[in-house]
Amino acid sequence: MGKGITSRESDYPQWYNDLVIKADLAENSPVRGCMIIKPYGFTIWEKMQRELDDMFKATGHVNAYFPLFIPKSYLSKEADHVEGFAKECAVVTHYRLKNSEDGKGVVVDPEAALEEELIIRPTSETVIWNAYKNWIQSYRDLPLLINQWANVVRWEMRTRLFLRTAEFLWQEGHTAHSTEKEAVEETLRILDVYADFAENVLAIPVIKGLKTESERFAGAVDTYCIEALMQDGKALQAGTSHFLGQNFAKAFDVTFATKEGNQELVWGTSWGVSTRLMGALIMAHGDDQGLIIPPKLAPVQVVIVPIYKNEEQYGEICEVGKRIQDGLRKRGILVKLDDRDTERPGWKFSEYELKGVPVRLAIGPRDLENENVELARRDTGQKEIVPMEGLEGRIESLLEETQKNIFNKALKFREENTQKIDSYDDFKKKVKNEGGFFLAHWDGTAETEEKVKNETKATIRCIPIEGEKEEGKCMVTGKPSSQRVIFAKAY
Amino acid sequence: MGKGITSRESDYPQWYNDLVIKADLAENSPVRGCMIIKPYGFTIWEKMQRELDDMFKATGHVNAYFPLFIPKSYLSKEADHVEGFAKECAVVTHYRLKNSEDGKGVVVDPEAALEEELIIRPTSETVIWNAYKNWIQSYRDLPLLINQWANVVRWEMRTRLFLRTAEFLWQEGHTAHSTEKEAVEETLRILDVYADFAENVLAIPVIKGLKTESERFAGAVDTYCIEALMQDGKALQAGTSHFLGQNFAKAFDVTFATKEGNQELVWGTSWGVSTRLMGALIMAHGDDQGLIIPPKLAPVQVVIVPIYKNEEQYGEICEVGKRIQDGLRKRGILVKLDDRDTERPGWKFSEYELKGVPVRLAIGPRDLENENVELARRDTGQKEIVPMEGLEGRIESLLEETQKNIFNKALKFREENTQKIDSYDDFKKKVKNEGGFFLAHWDGTAETEEKVKNETKATIRCIPIEGEKEEGKCMVTGKPSSQRVIFAKAY
Repeated sequence: MGKGITSRESDYPQWYNDLVIKADLAENSPVRGCMIIKPYGFTIWEKMQRELDDMFKATGHVNAYFPLFIPKSYLSKEADHVEGFAKECAVVTHYRLKNSEDGKGVVVDPEAALEEELIIRPTSETVIWNAYKNWIQSYRDLPLLINQWANVVRWEMRTRLFLRTAEFLWQEGHTAHSTEKEAVEETLRILDVYADFAENVLAIPVIKGLKTESERFAGAVDTYCIEALMQDGKALQAGTSHFLGQNFAKAFDVTFATKEGNQELVWGTSWGVSTRLMGALIMAHGDDQGLIIPPKLAPVQVVIVPIYKNEEQYGEICEVGKRIQDGLRKRGILVKLDDRDTERPGWKFSEYELKGVPVRLAIGPRDLENENVELARRDTGQKEIVPMEGLEGRIESLLEETQKNIFNKALKFREENTQKIDSYDDFKKKVKNEGGFFLAHWDGTAETEEKVKNETKATIRCIPIEGEKEEGKCMVTGKPSSQRVIFAKAY
Repeated sequence: MGKGITSRESDYPQWYNDLVIKADLAENSPVRGCMIIKPYGFTIWEKMQRELDDMFKATGHVNAYFPLFIPKSYLSKEADHVEGFAKECAVVTHYRLKNSEDGKGVVVDPEAALEEELIIRPTSETVIWNAYKNWIQSYRDLPLLINQWANVVRWEMRTRLFLRTAEFLWQEGHTAHSTEKEAVEETLRILDVYADFAENVLAIPVIKGLKTESERFAGAVDTYCIEALMQDGKALQAGTSHFLGQNFAKAFDVTFATKEGNQELVWGTSWGVSTRLMGALIMAHGDDQGLIIPPKLAPVQVVIVPIYKNEEQYGEICEVGKRIQDGLRKRGILVKLDDRDTERPGWKFSEYELKGVPVRLAIGPRDLENENVELARRDTGQKEIVPMEGLEGRIESLLEETQKNIFNKALKFREENTQKIDSYDDFKKKVKNEGGFFLAHWDGTAETEEKVKNETKATIRCIPIEGEKEEGKCMVTGKPSSQRVIFAKAY
């Protein structure tokens, strides 16, 4: 057991929290529901950002920045949108403080009340479509393919580090198109980008699907998502891509002149992933010793720990360690020689296990003699003695292999925890005891969905858009169904 | 005159605004004082961020993220700090909206008042030092070298795009050290990073100096700055680095155990640059045709414009254009072939002049025949016919030369507009008519500084920390002075 971490089996939520705190990823701030992302956690998030940003740019998107504040009246312009977001927002009402009369502090200056209150953006559709109205005149101005990296605030009542916080960091793409077809294509292109990113960078297998009406984004025509399975058998929505139809164009009166000279409403999409992905990363891969970070996101990919009994050994081993470090750096590998003499090797071993460093090299006096090092993999826990000769190439391949292995392990877990189910009685028992993804037939009605949710707490995660479509009968009502959908309990 | 831009001579502030708007850098948002940074402007800001971030990391700093919200009571903990920031902040008082009774919109839900109001961070010293209290126990935890990229809000009454906006983007570094010496060194190290960045990336010469007490950051012991001169003769503070002494450590009770086992207060620094640098970039280099962007920050470094009379020519020229584009891309040069047939070459020429693209290549039928291209430099306006043979290498050197030339031009301007002055009467006349930097002796008192400010609107930009120190007598009072300081009107 590493560093006093609760085991997953004994208390999964506590295990998660232990990892976040003890691996120095984040902590709660004094402001309710807000978190501080600590340097180690932020470095992982930066790497996610960089990878995603490159993918967005490679698909023709550019970044911009829109204001933090949304005038209160904007929220009301799209009817569904206001229902979805007005209930959990931070409201700015004043723009000045003044000294309190007792001289001991500051109070809100009642004379500095805003004429119209401002909402801290919970998402930026309204402020962005209000700008698009002026940016779009003709078909020549389309498509507009814009993304922003920003902080947003949703006043959640129950918060958990990374998974659900009042303020969180995310990217939100907002695109405008001249045709429905193009906007739908964009929605699905981004869904593919998200799935690619989740599987090949986060090493988390995901299922691409369509949300049911009840889980749809407030203001969207269709919401697509990628759904991942965590180790406790609960689903986690890892990204969403919305086809907005002409809803926001209507609400903000955004039209364009077609080639033929007609005025038409613009078609839109929006899509986002957030620091919630940090939660997914932790819960998909971590074990009772700590984090397991895929090499593509690891702030440190290889750590070198010298093992020595005296000053002379220390000097010699560190020298070799530095040489190995230099060699790995030249290949672009993120390596750290931990030559601190204030901590013992055993402490360092469990520290880097906790932090999820993919590869650990230990060098002792005997290794030096035999020109070997001890190489330990974090993902499998395997240790072996390998020659220093050819070490760099070996580590390079090992990092690639580790990236794949972490994905495969998560995929195997998902496969073992996905089952087809046809009887609602079975379903109720299994959802209660087993967790995982349940592939079941559903009659397509909100009533049935609601009934299942109330009786089992499982929801329809998505209607998969890939794979075989098998017809059948709804497990609850027996009515016809055109394909199985995914039920699960979810974060 | 490009695209209806006001000339600098006729109306400098309007020229500035024209450039920001017409070159698509930014625009005002419907929320008073907030701006929308448009894709072209944001791409330049991203490049600044990337360069600076690399420099911070190369000097041992890491990024983290602290909350947007600051509890009201935190602001009051450092006495000077609250005086400086309480008067211009956005205050969150409620966390929910509800439907209005007339059913037409939403209103603030009076039942959702926060127990303690939250301030949108105007700067994050308080929330960060509150966290540092828990992060720092012993000398082993020091130094802490943390930076964050974030949005901040200061409720300014008079705003101007990039130069002064209610919400702006910036980075804020916050470091903690075990000794005064180390903290002072850090303050100056960052000042050097800022100066290096300003001169070698922004191509703006700056003077490093110390602020007088009246211009010091609220809560600092010493504020250092870099000061630049704009083309209208006004100074612009382009970055500040603060030595905080133990002020915030005292306010938030942040102590550490020394090696010897004593408890001591921690020493701190903070430092920042913001989207204001975009304003500096525009005003330092732009001309009446538009922006002039140094190659290191240009979203497009080279544009290729085909000139043709018929379809056949168009095809042939675009093919050559693509070949040149590929060749330049391979060298890592940001190049764009503008092969749109919806716009005329003349329109494109002035468009790219406006946008400040450093190099323009034009290819016409005759060029094709002679294996030449027309090459135009944005910084000097020079055009020449050059052979296609060896073009890539030529452009590579030209971009380097352009970067230097833009800096040298700005340096020459500053030198021509910097003068020593010893008579206060002369000073008053010249400040009124000429602008620029005035090197004058000052007696070191706040009274004299205030008097000069009231009588001339010029302020002490800084006490230079480099160059010769020449003793003399205060131009106002005749009292002794140990060195000349820089007076100027400022943004």
